[in-house]
Amino acid sequence: MDIQRWAVKIEYDGTGLVGWQRQKKGLSIQQVLEEAAEKICNNQYKINSITAGRTDSGVHAMGQVAHLDFPAHLPLTAKKICDGLNHYMKPHAIAILQAGQVDLQWSARFTAVQRKYRYVILNRLSRPALNTNYVWHVRKPLDVDKMVRAAQYLLGQHDFTSFRATACQANSPIRKLDRFDIYKKDDYIYFEPEARSFLHHQVRNMVGTLKMIGDGYWPEEQAFTILQAKDRKAAGINAPATGLFLTEVIYPTDPFIEQI
Amino acid sequence: MDIQRWAVKIEYDGTGLVGWQRQKKGLSIQQVLEEAAEKICNNQYKINSITAGRTDSGVHAMGQVAHLDFPAHLPLTAKKICDGLNHYMKPHAIAILQAGQVDLQWSARFTAVQRKYRYVILNRLSRPALNTNYVWHVRKPLDVDKMVRAAQYLLGQHDFTSFRATACQANSPIRKLDRFDIYKKDDYIYFEPEARSFLHHQVRNMVGTLKMIGDGYWPEEQAFTILQAKDRKAAGINAPATGLFLTEVIYPTDPFIEQI
Repeated sequence: MDIQRWAVKIEYDGTGLVGWQRQKKGLSIQQVLEEAAEKICNNQYKINSITAGRTDSGVHAMGQVAHLDFPAHLPLTAKKICDGLNHYMKPHAIAILQAGQVDLQWSARFTAVQRKYRYVILNRLSRPALNTNYVWHVRKPLDVDKMVRAAQYLLGQHDFTSFRATACQANSPIRKLDRFDIYKKDDYIYFEPEARSFLHHQVRNMVGTLKMIGDGYWPEEQAFTILQAKDRKAAGINAPATGLFLTEVIYPTDPFIEQI
Repeated sequence: MDIQRWAVKIEYDGTGLVGWQRQKKGLSIQQVLEEAAEKICNNQYKINSITAGRTDSGVHAMGQVAHLDFPAHLPLTAKKICDGLNHYMKPHAIAILQAGQVDLQWSARFTAVQRKYRYVILNRLSRPALNTNYVWHVRKPLDVDKMVRAAQYLLGQHDFTSFRATACQANSPIRKLDRFDIYKKDDYIYFEPEARSFLHHQVRNMVGTLKMIGDGYWPEEQAFTILQAKDRKAAGINAPATGLFLTEVIYPTDPFIEQI
């Protein structure tokens, strides 16, 4: 059967979901999205999606991208895809921001050239009352300048084995970290890494390690030592999922630009 | 009985609460705070609080300030007040950020010299998946520059009767609006007014009016016309509580500065 492929930009609150990928133990973003897509087709076809980043349980997104294949004969438009998916995904905290038709050679996952994440630490004594599900609450004061210096060791192309989940399925542990901005505003510290792609848990493991440098447990050179060790046990803790956002996925040409 | 007076800085998520003031119909920030303060005293004393801003149901705060009077003989410290109140206010989304002892002449309400609010509009077609309780979702595109120009009519000292709730208890409708910054970041539009004090619903009525100017319903000069009318019916809609935050209350000297 001939197909038409559509890219969608997705925002979601990962709280209470099991993450991107379908799992028996609970509701995933993938399941909510694909079931909504099937409802657009009156449940006459099985619709599969491919995503740019398979985020973990509790992780959020402002700019996740996925593609969906529909039968070619359906009279779909960007507006129909957006409105239809948003309607059928209610009341879940998942929203389609934009849609755009793409070539069948185009893949949300493999065509992506850059991925941007944001990790947020709330650094103060008092527990959060606002943004409870959007931060990692750290009571011990963190030295932002020291974390900024430590992050420089991670920039560039490295074997990131030390920052990789044991369950990571990537063929190679080599990644190139292009940017890693760290800054503070009020009591919030923002970590914004950017790379073509990341290993499983890489962002959270990097943040967990920087936190242990920022609170004085380790000197800033420890970031270099850990990288050299190529051993997951050498690195710091895996920062909680709750503070992590997939903010943007970049493609050679924006698949959404003329669509809305 | 001799008393000691303590100022506290409070963050809260107003979702699901009836607002600052005690009400029979539901739980208020005042009730949660005062009951926690009484638990610090083993429920042997009735503790009353006075606040800088009696926020409405659904309104949030990053920097609300209140003062509490305790019996003078209790061995209280800023740390004991913070930790004790935060402990007993669990699991409510209300947190004490700082505490500081103040003179008995000092009032969280009457000593305040400036109040700052932030109102957040999410301006895009798709419903919010993130920050659902922290924005007013407006689908129609708003002209930010036009709202910035319209807001200039409201700056300075005016009779704000048109922007005042009918239930407002203030003696005078005259207020001096010192600043009103309006700017956009991604799909979020921020409105940040600043004044010694505001009338009841003034911020939400000003934002509701500016929204109706920004979406083209009114020309920007309508802000001036409405102000001149001195009639609540002349102004725009009351923007929903959900997008409003009390961000900061300023005092001649910071009561918290040396406390934490």
